[in-house]
Amino acid sequence: MNKGDAIGVFDSGVGGLTVVRALMERLPSESIYYFGDTARVPYGVKSLETINRYAREIAGFLLKKEVKLLIIACNTMSSVAFETVREISTVPVLEVIDAGARQAVKESRHGIIGVIGTPATINSNAYARRIHEYDPSVRVVSQTCPLFVPLVEEGWLDHEVTRLTAKEYLRPILAEGVDTLVLGCTHYPLLKPLLRELAGPEVVLVDSAVAIAQRAAELLEREGLTKNNEPPVEYKYFVTDLPLRFHTIAERFLGRSLGEVELVKLPL
Amino acid sequence: MNKGDAIGVFDSGVGGLTVVRALMERLPSESIYYFGDTARVPYGVKSLETINRYAREIAGFLLKKEVKLLIIACNTMSSVAFETVREISTVPVLEVIDAGARQAVKESRHGIIGVIGTPATINSNAYARRIHEYDPSVRVVSQTCPLFVPLVEEGWLDHEVTRLTAKEYLRPILAEGVDTLVLGCTHYPLLKPLLRELAGPEVVLVDSAVAIAQRAAELLEREGLTKNNEPPVEYKYFVTDLPLRFHTIAERFLGRSLGEVELVKLPL
Repeated sequence: MNKGDAIGVFDSGVGGLTVVRALMERLPSESIYYFGDTARVPYGVKSLETINRYAREIAGFLLKKEVKLLIIACNTMSSVAFETVREISTVPVLEVIDAGARQAVKESRHGIIGVIGTPATINSNAYARRIHEYDPSVRVVSQTCPLFVPLVEEGWLDHEVTRLTAKEYLRPILAEGVDTLVLGCTHYPLLKPLLRELAGPEVVLVDSAVAIAQRAAELLEREGLTKNNEPPVEYKYFVTDLPLRFHTIAERFLGRSLGEVELVKLPL
Repeated sequence: MNKGDAIGVFDSGVGGLTVVRALMERLPSESIYYFGDTARVPYGVKSLETINRYAREIAGFLLKKEVKLLIIACNTMSSVAFETVREISTVPVLEVIDAGARQAVKESRHGIIGVIGTPATINSNAYARRIHEYDPSVRVVSQTCPLFVPLVEEGWLDHEVTRLTAKEYLRPILAEGVDTLVLGCTHYPLLKPLLRELAGPEVVLVDSAVAIAQRAAELLEREGLTKNNEPPVEYKYFVTDLPLRFHTIAERFLGRSLGEVELVKLPL
C-alpha cells in the first residue's frame, strides 16, 4: 500500500461514476480505478448469494491492481456484501450506505429521515440499521423507487413522466414529515434538481456520493495515505461489457469525458 | 428426437413466460422446459458478442435435456443470435421475430407496419429486415420503448405514468399512419389492453407470443412431432437466479401458478 496508489471504486454498472465524479472534485490529486460490472447489471434484482459472489470477484480484481482504498459505490453491494469484501481486503474499505447514514443523522433536525432506493437496498433494511447505530431515536421512513434507474438511463431527468413517478414515490414519505432525505442509489444524484423541487426547501437531501468522497478524504488523511500534490493523476475504467450508448450514459454520470476504458472478460 | 420430448423455450429472464403461456393454450398436451437467465438479465443493453455467447450456452443446456424443438422467446436473442443457435442445434429452432414479422405482413391492409421493442431489438433492425423478406413493399416504422420493461415489472400495467409514457412512445409511429403494430418484446403483451386503447380500433396489434405458438403447432404437425394426447404433461422452469419477488412477477407473466423451479449454477 502506497500513497501513490489509486483509489479503487466499484459498482454494478455506470451509476458509481457519480461517486467517481464526487471524488474527482473532493480529491483532485488522487488516481482512481473504476470497475463497472456492466455485463451483469443490475444487481438490485439478484439473490444475496449471487451479489456476494460478484462483489468478492470484483474486489479481488481491484486489489490485484494495487489500490490503497476500496470504495463500494453500489448501494446494493454495500447493503449485502460489505462484510464479505472487508474480510478479503488488505486495504481499508468504505461503502456508500455508512457514509449516507452518518451524514443524514448529522443533518436531521427533528429526527425523521426518509430513505429512497432500489428494492434490494430498501428491503435489506441496511440504511435504517446503520442510521439507528448512529442514533437509535431517529425514525426512518423508506420507499423503493424501482423506476428511477431506468428513467435516469433514458435521460428523462426533468420529464413529466419522471415528475409524476417521483411524486407518487415521494408522497407517502413526505406525508410522514421527513426533514432529511437520503438518495440511496448512485443513479439518484442526477434527479437531485427534480427531487429537491418536489421535496421542498425544508427537506435536506443527502447525496451519498458527496458524503463518501468526504469520508474518503478524512480516511486517507488519518492513515497518512493522501497522495502528494504531484502528477500524474490516472483515471482508468474497467467494464465487463460495452453496451449500446455506454459512453453517452457514462459521461452523463461522470459529468465529463471518459478516459481509457478497458473491457474485462468474465468470469473474473 | 421423440414425440414425447418437451419443447424448450428460453429467454433472458421472465418475459418469455408469455410465450410459454401462449404455448400452453395452443398446445395443451405438450411438455415445456423453460430457461430464464435471470442472473444475467437484461440482455437488451449487452454487446452482440456477449448475447451470442449466452445464447449458445443456454441452447446447449436445453439440448442436453433432449428437447424436440427450441424456441427463442427473447427478442434480443432472436435478433442477434438466431444463426448461432441454429448452427449448434440438432432440433428445429423457431424465434419470435420471424413469427411476429410473418403475422404482421399477413394482417397489414395498407402496408404500414409499426414495431416497438427494446433498444437492442430495434437497433438490430431485425424486424424490418424480416418483414421486407416477406413483403419488400411494406413501410416499417420503429420505436424503442426502454421504459416498458421496468413499468411492466413494477406492475403499473394501467397506471397514469405508463399511459403517459406509452403516449409519448406511440405518438411518432401513430402519426405515420401504421395499420398494424408489432409488440416486439415479450413483456409487452401485459400492456396490450392499454396499447390497444391508445392505438385505437383501426390498428391491429400483433402479439409475437401468440404468433410463435401457432408456428410451433404447424411445425410439430408438419414434422410428425406432435405429442399424442396422453399424460403426463411436464412443465419445468430453470433459472440462473431466484431474485426478489420472482414468483409474483413470473406468475403475472404466466397467468397461472408456477410449477417446479430449478436454480441452475453459472457458468453453464
